[in-house]
Amino acid sequence: MKGKISGVSLGPGEPELITLKALKALQEADIIYCPGTQTKSRSRDILQALPINMERVRLFHVPMSKDRTLANQTYDSICTEIAALVATGKNIAITAEGDSGFYSSVNYMFDKLASMNLPITTIAGVPAFIAAGAISGLHIVKQEEKLVVLPGIITAEELDSLLTSGYVVVIMKLSQCTSEIHRFMQTNRQHEFHYYENVGTINELHSTNYKDIIQKEYPYFSLMIIRPGKQLA
Amino acid sequence: MKGKISGVSLGPGEPELITLKALKALQEADIIYCPGTQTKSRSRDILQALPINMERVRLFHVPMSKDRTLANQTYDSICTEIAALVATGKNIAITAEGDSGFYSSVNYMFDKLASMNLPITTIAGVPAFIAAGAISGLHIVKQEEKLVVLPGIITAEELDSLLTSGYVVVIMKLSQCTSEIHRFMQTNRQHEFHYYENVGTINELHSTNYKDIIQKEYPYFSLMIIRPGKQLA
Repeated sequence: MKGKISGVSLGPGEPELITLKALKALQEADIIYCPGTQTKSRSRDILQALPINMERVRLFHVPMSKDRTLANQTYDSICTEIAALVATGKNIAITAEGDSGFYSSVNYMFDKLASMNLPITTIAGVPAFIAAGAISGLHIVKQEEKLVVLPGIITAEELDSLLTSGYVVVIMKLSQCTSEIHRFMQTNRQHEFHYYENVGTINELHSTNYKDIIQKEYPYFSLMIIRPGKQLA
Repeated sequence: MKGKISGVSLGPGEPELITLKALKALQEADIIYCPGTQTKSRSRDILQALPINMERVRLFHVPMSKDRTLANQTYDSICTEIAALVATGKNIAITAEGDSGFYSSVNYMFDKLASMNLPITTIAGVPAFIAAGAISGLHIVKQEEKLVVLPGIITAEELDSLLTSGYVVVIMKLSQCTSEIHRFMQTNRQHEFHYYENVGTINELHSTNYKDIIQKEYPYFSLMIIRPGKQLA
């Protein structure tokens, strides 16, 4: 007797943006592993708003650091725990915010579990930038437009080069490149800047106001979509 | 008395990959506008598998052509029809496959309806490339990786330049650039090629087999995710 493991994408934060398939996998799981701390977990906030038995949820805390050693030790020890549970026939779900294959740190666990020959499947979800576009009615990319998604590491010069080449640019983890964004915006007002924070929560914010965006300190959960504008004469 | 309009993303094709929010919007709509022909509609196939009253579904056919004139005339006439219905208090849903803000032709209608001062909201969905990654357990982008999404217009040289710069590349509408992909693969075997067709349907296919992929004629619903490999010595 062997259980199964599902990597379940929860979507960007708004509970109803979970898919039917993901909800079903959560409801069928005997144990739901969910990243967070005792006081803070975006994944748990989503689960709590859904018709799910919360007694099945096991929070785990992953140390945050550029050096991934401690984080990976945590993941390894949870994988060992999960392997033992699966051997006794338990069905396990592991949650990820947004989509589990799109910049998701729990994917390290999926790789590890797969390398242990454990049966793991993943269920797709709505990434945060897609949800951001929808809340503001933005057509992110259309027809023959090209898209670039950057994980918060960018200089003003690189941004200029991409937009001049006609790319629509999505910048995630915006707080990591605040000063470069401010520097870029000062001399490139011709583009369409769409700023979002805390998408899918009650603190959700969307702004296209140039003055607001250029002065702001960006919080952890913020992103920007920039559509290229015409070059100034 | 005025109705409301929802732009509803259906996800990539597998009915259960619709979000709870999108399903609810469809169930609450008096009329569901859905692109397709009498014989063929991917959107209708999805709707038929869901708990939705199919009598409320109105199919509309959009002429396919590079020249958007005829397509836009069709959209304009449906928008006029919808405006009249909304004025009598009807709630309208307009379906889009994948995500409605991500290369979706119905977005033209949303812009038109918004310009007519009609109340329209959009609901996010799972894009096809995200679902593709999930069916093969692929971590599409991780950590500090950058992503480019291209709508089927690419040369072998541009592809080489992007992958050499470390970008993960998603190519949609693969049938539009078959010969360039084949040409590129002949001399660039070091990269990881993930090929997908008909994601979310019973004809779903995923392959990472180099020989399979380089010989194939790509159908309309096909895409590729290429992760950059190490340069050959």
